[in-house]
Order: sequence, then C-alpha cells, then structure tokens
Amino acid sequence: MALLERNDTGPVAHLRLNAPERINALSDAMLAALQSQIDTLREDRSIRAVVISGAGKAFCAGHDLKEMTAGRQSEDGGRAYFADLFNRCASVMTGLRALPQPVIAAPHGIATAAGCQLVASCDLAIAAEGTRFGVNGVNIGLFCSTPMVALSRNIPRKQAFEMLTTGEFIDTDRAQALGLINRAVPADDLLPAAMEMAETIAAKLGAAVRIGKEAFYNQLEMGLDAAYAYTGQVMVENMLRSDTAEGISAFIEKRAPDWDQ
Amino acid sequence: MALLERNDTGPVAHLRLNAPERINALSDAMLAALQSQIDTLREDRSIRAVVISGAGKAFCAGHDLKEMTAGRQSEDGGRAYFADLFNRCASVMTGLRALPQPVIAAPHGIATAAGCQLVASCDLAIAAEGTRFGVNGVNIGLFCSTPMVALSRNIPRKQAFEMLTTGEFIDTDRAQALGLINRAVPADDLLPAAMEMAETIAAKLGAAVRIGKEAFYNQLEMGLDAAYAYTGQVMVENMLRSDTAEGISAFIEKRAPDWDQ
Amino acid sequence: MALLERNDTGPVAHLRLNAPERINALSDAMLAALQSQIDTLREDRSIRAVVISGAGKAFCAGHDLKEMTAGRQSEDGGRAYFADLFNRCASVMTGLRALPQPVIAAPHGIATAAGCQLVASCDLAIAAEGTRFGVNGVNIGLFCSTPMVALSRNIPRKQAFEMLTTGEFIDTDRAQALGLINRAVPADDLLPAAMEMAETIAAKLGAAVRIGKEAFYNQLEMGLDAAYAYTGQVMVENMLRSDTAEGISAFIEKRAPDWDQ
Repeated sequence: MALLERNDTGPVAHLRLNAPERINALSDAMLAALQSQIDTLREDRSIRAVVISGAGKAFCAGHDLKEMTAGRQSEDGGRAYFADLFNRCASVMTGLRALPQPVIAAPHGIATAAGCQLVASCDLAIAAEGTRFGVNGVNIGLFCSTPMVALSRNIPRKQAFEMLTTGEFIDTDRAQALGLINRAVPADDLLPAAMEMAETIAAKLGAAVRIGKEAFYNQLEMGLDAAYAYTGQVMVENMLRSDTAEGISAFIEKRAPDWDQ
Repeated sequence: MALLERNDTGPVAHLRLNAPERINALSDAMLAALQSQIDTLREDRSIRAVVISGAGKAFCAGHDLKEMTAGRQSEDGGRAYFADLFNRCASVMTGLRALPQPVIAAPHGIATAAGCQLVASCDLAIAAEGTRFGVNGVNIGLFCSTPMVALSRNIPRKQAFEMLTTGEFIDTDRAQALGLINRAVPADDLLPAAMEMAETIAAKLGAAVRIGKEAFYNQLEMGLDAAYAYTGQVMVENMLRSDTAEGISAFIEKRAPDWDQ
Repeated sequence: MALLERNDTGPVAHLRLNAPERINALSDAMLAALQSQIDTLREDRSIRAVVISGAGKAFCAGHDLKEMTAGRQSEDGGRAYFADLFNRCASVMTGLRALPQPVIAAPHGIATAAGCQLVASCDLAIAAEGTRFGVNGVNIGLFCSTPMVALSRNIPRKQAFEMLTTGEFIDTDRAQALGLINRAVPADDLLPAAMEMAETIAAKLGAAVRIGKEAFYNQLEMGLDAAYAYTGQVMVENMLRSDTAEGISAFIEKRAPDWDQ
C-alpha cells in the first residue's frame, strides 16, 4: 500500500494519508509524497478538485516525533535537518493553497499540531462529527508556531491563542462556529459529503474556479484599493473568456451552458 | 420614478434601488446614480446616516448581464468597457466606505454577486428574515472576484471560499453568525429597524462619528503600533473639539449636552 | 490599599484594579501603576501567567473623564497632555501583548471604552456572566478610536462598527460568539476560572509559551510566506532547546517530562 493513496473519480482526486499505525504522521516520506502529488496536480487540468482524508482511526497527529528525535544525532544537533523539515512542511501547506484546484480536508478522529495545520491550510473542510482539533505541541515543550500560521488565519485570535497555550482541544461544533471547518457530518457520511462538495465544485467552469482561487488568496493580503484594482483586472480577463461568454448567454437564454472543459 | 430614489427623513438619507423589473441590477445607469448620490452626500453635513434598500421582490442581483453581453460588441471584445465597468463599480463600493456618514444596507429577498458585495461594502446591515445571500457568479463561469474583496473582509475565509466556489446561498441566521449582517428582522420591520439604527447614529455628535468612521477603516489596514500612533492623534483632535468638551462636561454634570450640530 | 493590587500565587500574578469608587478608571496614576507592573513582569521569569481583574462593582469604565477635563486648563487647551495620555495608554495596551507571559482579563459588571480595550488587549478573557461590553464614547462626543484598535482585531468589522457608532452594549453570550472573550462563567467562579486557566498555562514549559506568544503576534501581521519563513526559524530554535528535547523524549517514552523550569 502506498503511504499516500490517490484515487481519482472523474475530475476529483482523493488523497488518503495511509500510515495509520503512526496516526498518519507527517514524516519525511509523507511530506515528500504530498509534495509530489501537489507538483503533479498543479499541472493537471483534468483534475478540478482535491479531497484529503486519513486512513485508520484518525486524520493526522502532526509531525513524526521519533523521526525528529533521531534528527538530533547530527553534529549540529539537528539544526539543519529541522530547518529543512519546516521548510518542506511549509512548502506542502502553502502548496495546497497555490494549487489551481480547491482542496477539501476531510478529517476524522483527531487533527492535531501539523495535522490541524493541514486542515486549516486546505481551502475547505468537512469533518466527521466527533473529530477533535488541537495545537497541543505546548504540552511537550514545542509551541505550535508553524501550525498557528494557518490556524490564526482561520479563527479569531483569542480562540487560537487559547488552543495554542492551553493545549486543549475543540470539538466540531466549536470548530465550525469559529471557522476552522465548513461543517460536520456523521462519520459514515464523511467521504460522500466531501466528494459531493468536490463534485459540485468540479462541475463549475474550471477556468473560473482556477482564476478565482488564485485571486482569493492574493487579494486577502492587499489593502482595499489594491485589492479592487487587482480583482478588477481579474474580472476583465474572466469576462473575455469565450466559455464565460457562453455561460452568461446560456443564463440569459435560460439554457444549460455548452462548456467544453 | 427615479432609478435610485432618495428620501430624506431629517438627518437620514434613504436610497432605494428602483429597477425592480431587473431585480435592481447594478447597470451603468444605476452605478452612475449611486456614484452621483455618493458624491453629493460626501459634502452634505446635514445628512448623518444613510440607508440603502431595494424596491420590489429583492434587494439586488448584481451586475446587469444583458448590458455586459452587449458590451462585447466593440472592436476589443469589451475589454475597455469591462475595465471601466469594474472601476466604476469599485468606486461605488469604496465610495460608500469613504462617505463620512455610516451606511446601513437593508436587503430583502436576495442579495447576490455584486448585490451581496453591496451589502458587504456598507458599514452595517440589517436584513429581512428570509433574505438569501450568494456570490454565485461561478455558476455562469464568472467568478465573483470583485465581490469577494468585500465579502472576505466581512466573514471567515473558509466560509467565503465555500460560497464563492459552490455558488450556494446562505440564509440570514448564517449571515449573522458569520458577520455579513448585524441582524435580521421580520420583513415588515425592515425599514423601520434600519431607520431606527440610522436615527440612533444620527443623534450622536456628527463630528465624532465622522472622525471615527474614517479612522476605523484606516487603522484596520495598519499594524498594531502604527494603528495606535495614528488613532492616538485622532483622539487628541477629537478631544480638542469644543463639542466634545461640552459632551464630557455634560456627562460629568449628569445633564444632556448642548450640541449645536 | 494600593491602586493596583498584586497578589502572586506561585507562578501566577494577579493584578487587581483597585479604585472601585471611580469604577477603576484608567487615570494617570492607574496607567502608571499598570506600566510599572508590566515593566517588572517583563523581566520576571518566575511569573508565567498574569490575571487582571477589577475590585468593586465593575471591571473598568475607561479613562478618567474628570482628570481629562482638568487637563484642558493648560495653555494649549490640553493638546500636549492628551497626546501624552493616549501614548501612555497605548503603551500599557501594547505592553500587555509584548509581555512574555500570557495575560488573562477577568472582567465583571461593565467593561467600557478603554476598559473594553483592556479586555480586547489581553491575550485571553474569561468574563463573569452578566458583564456588559461597550465602546460608548460616541455618546459623549468622543469616538472610541484607540479602543477600536484592539476591539477590531478581536471581532468582525460590522459588529465592531455597530458598537462604536451606536454606543450599544453587548452581553457575554454575544461577546463570546464574536470572539471578544473566550468564555463566561458564573460571577462566583470568575477568579477561580481565570486562575485555573492561568495555572494550566503556567504548568507548560515556560520557554515554549514565551517563544510562542511572541511569534503569535509577530506572524499575524505578516503575509503567508513571510509568516512561514519566520515561524520555521522559531520552531528550529524551539526544537534545539534541551527542555524541548526532554519533553518530546518523555512523550515518546510515555513518562512525565523532567523540566527544570
């Protein structure tokens, strides 16, 4: 079995973290497998949405602590290895955001530390009821400083700060209320619900979603005037696409668009 | 009947989008009418709050798609027209924010695409129960890239991303929980409730509200230290106004302030 | 009795605003006392969490209006005094954030204007049920421009704008839903609950919390890529600490860490 399974259903790629005996830890090998899929998916126009789930009892418990501890054996006490590790991890997290396809996290069981970061780094998230989310590295003396980059861009700051400094978990009701997930469904419905959301998105005009996802994150980091100047240009390019002309004409004429995606 | 009705009640200006047969589309003419009112209101110290509502069955369904399609007939396929259109639209949206008066959206029925952007661009919003909000341009191949500038500054990002990529609508309960509206009221109470909020604000010292609204959005785009340096100066200027001295003295002396607004 | 009482319980410092006859106003003397404690606590590695509460019927009603009015008597009408006052107040508010220790606000009764700012400026907040929060300076002609810097970084913008321009209060349910407080507890449980949260945090590895709190606010003001580059380095330094090595080893070996804090 592959460490990271990929299963395509039409235009939807389903990635499954598959190291259940290590709670799907983001080991060197797992990060490499994720990066490899990200690099492949980035160029694949036939895939229009991605779902990420985990095999076994839980979604992901974060970094592989045994591997990290082994990394201390080098002459520099691990400094170079750790720097490289956090670079590779950040590359995966920002790589998901930079993918042209929307990415839906489908966590169950627990999503902790870098596992919680993975949920926060996806564009969307549907969780199994009962999933617990935490950034609990503080309990072992390692503050979740990189996970908080993603978490604090999903939920309000006092709530993020509480999770980070107390190490306490939140349930799916709270995760939804705060903005970490879009919604929760019964465990049996998790993959069907995530796949349904993916298929809904995949049925849209691919170019429009691609244009929009890139613009979404770009404009979020701009001031208001710059954001409008930028997205105004994005809208012009979107309008000038022949598929968009067809979509608008079809809407006016009350018929289905004839899109050759 | 004017395309954009204006009805003043004392210090409150009520603008009503009045093209119900086109669901109050933000056509070239409607954008021009809004810009004209914004330009007038900006200089009018006698108006201290603004309410925006829509005539007919729904608040606003966004841009006028027939007009946009007609715009494709020029030699450049519409490029110059579209660029100008999105500039004019952004000028209205940012113009509302730049008005010295607080602006309250009072949507009912639906508020979609640039209509949802209009709600998000107002300082405050009270909606009729049952109003549905969407940024559903993706359904016709035109991602709501400019509407998302306003929307993503009102609600958390995963929830905004879901609306943008699925095209699905949210109801007033969800809109309130996410931050898109301040609250919902029964449809019959919509205008009374919006007018009451406007009158509450209009009864404050106009200069204080004017100073505060400008400072509110300016400081939001600053880092913490810059925001305090800036607002500290704003507070000093506010304190040095004779009306503010009177307001504070009246409070200490437990009497009503003698304000000559 | 001191204007600002300090009572230490092990690694937790409890500061109590103690001018109940003036609703614990942030007078010149109170700001000086807070700044003095901040300056002391910043250097004190034995203190690992701070709780701030108020004596008497309410937490804090903001600036001392009588003192501010007296400040108008100088030749410049108070300009220099006000500028200095808002600088000193901002120094206290940003000083709490810059403290190495997490700071928990424990408000009861009311927290208004700069008193609401104080709650918003703390890292965490547990409130007594029934506490009312407001930024109601607009009612006396002084818009809460400096309080809004903290408030608008805690809660969504339309909700902040409503509080600022209407002067209306929110209760603890709303304050929790919006993100201004972490939770509310019955009044009798207020200090026990705040102390319990403080002790939970104080029991973590002090260096990890210190590293994390600083990084939390720094990365919040960065773009995504810069935030990851920065926190990646923070994680490396955290990993290289011997206490963190011990914490991770203890976790792997399923034993309690042997931390010499």
